[in-house]
Amino acid sequence: MKLQIAIDLVDSDTALKMVEQIHDVIDIVEVGTPMIMREGMLPVKKIKAKFPDVIVLADTKIVDGGDIECGDAIEAGADIVTVLALAADETIKAVINTARKHGKESMADMISVEDVAARAIQLEKMGIDYICLHTALDVQNTTKAPLEDLVKVKEVIKVTKTAVAGGINMQTIYPTKEISPDIVVAGGSLTKATDLRKSVIEMKNVLLDRTSN
Amino acid sequence: MKLQIAIDLVDSDTALKMVEQIHDVIDIVEVGTPMIMREGMLPVKKIKAKFPDVIVLADTKIVDGGDIECGDAIEAGADIVTVLALAADETIKAVINTARKHGKESMADMISVEDVAARAIQLEKMGIDYICLHTALDVQNTTKAPLEDLVKVKEVIKVTKTAVAGGINMQTIYPTKEISPDIVVAGGSLTKATDLRKSVIEMKNVLLDRTSN
Repeated sequence: MKLQIAIDLVDSDTALKMVEQIHDVIDIVEVGTPMIMREGMLPVKKIKAKFPDVIVLADTKIVDGGDIECGDAIEAGADIVTVLALAADETIKAVINTARKHGKESMADMISVEDVAARAIQLEKMGIDYICLHTALDVQNTTKAPLEDLVKVKEVIKVTKTAVAGGINMQTIYPTKEISPDIVVAGGSLTKATDLRKSVIEMKNVLLDRTSN
Repeated sequence: MKLQIAIDLVDSDTALKMVEQIHDVIDIVEVGTPMIMREGMLPVKKIKAKFPDVIVLADTKIVDGGDIECGDAIEAGADIVTVLALAADETIKAVINTARKHGKESMADMISVEDVAARAIQLEKMGIDYICLHTALDVQNTTKAPLEDLVKVKEVIKVTKTAVAGGINMQTIYPTKEISPDIVVAGGSLTKATDLRKSVIEMKNVLLDRTSN
């Protein structure tokens, strides 16, 4: 299981300083959608320029123009590019193909998808690399963590990898780990921690069955 | 009927030069999603800094974090902010409220929505300012222009304004105009024209029932 940190609500210079603290202990650095909305691909470029070996996920949440937008993200340095599972199949296939052509990976974000099992089967058939079960930030207070959906998806897919995002912290990490997603995405529980590096190592240790002491 | 130009595939400096040519004849300048993915809110800031009176739509296609992302776009200068109609109601309401709080407007993009009439009724109830019928770029070769959906939506809404996007050119503008959307969005047919200003005026004249000669 890999740990992905979602960096959302800071500017690219702050993001870069955060990555400096954790680049050797984090598996994947996500440049979150709000950061992309504000600064575009600049944070991706800055992080890859300084830390070319860090795996960067650009949370583009593409819903149209799959080839163009995925290509732009990869050109900026992204290793994994996200597309909405709700997008048209043509868009998803364009993202998959463009990523693959460049030796990069694609992830479908299942946000707002009702029948996750049915869509997961279709996404696997299209050739997506990752399916991310994602409880929207705006509904995190009204619905439970997306673990039930993760179970449903894992039951129907064969080779596609999974990721889970939304409300992951040092409590929810334990039940999450039991379901063995390939990637666990944590946001605020890491980015708002007083000691970022320590918090990343602690969470990583849980995933690796190591004690933090 | 207003004419909106969607500027997508250029950098912010080129976008600014395009706006310089048409700022007095265009109704709304859209900073398109691919441009936002690459440069974030920079194009919005540059356009508003030079042409504060131009109405700028930021095609953010928000699907989560409605308050934050809408707030950021408005802070950058956007007058109209888009949210996916497929997003959770909580997200759409957050975008509507944040826009309204700042005296700005919200638009729901109906991309990939199956039952457009049913969703339009819900969106109107939430208080969205505009509903945009939008054929995804990636499926424009496989499906027809979104005029049938525009008719269906106009039949069920009472006060919400409408916009239509996808494949609008000097041929499709005529049947589009017959249905009287509040905003007609044209992209490539304007941005790729040899004479941008002339093309905008021509299309605007059709909407205003004026002859170009």
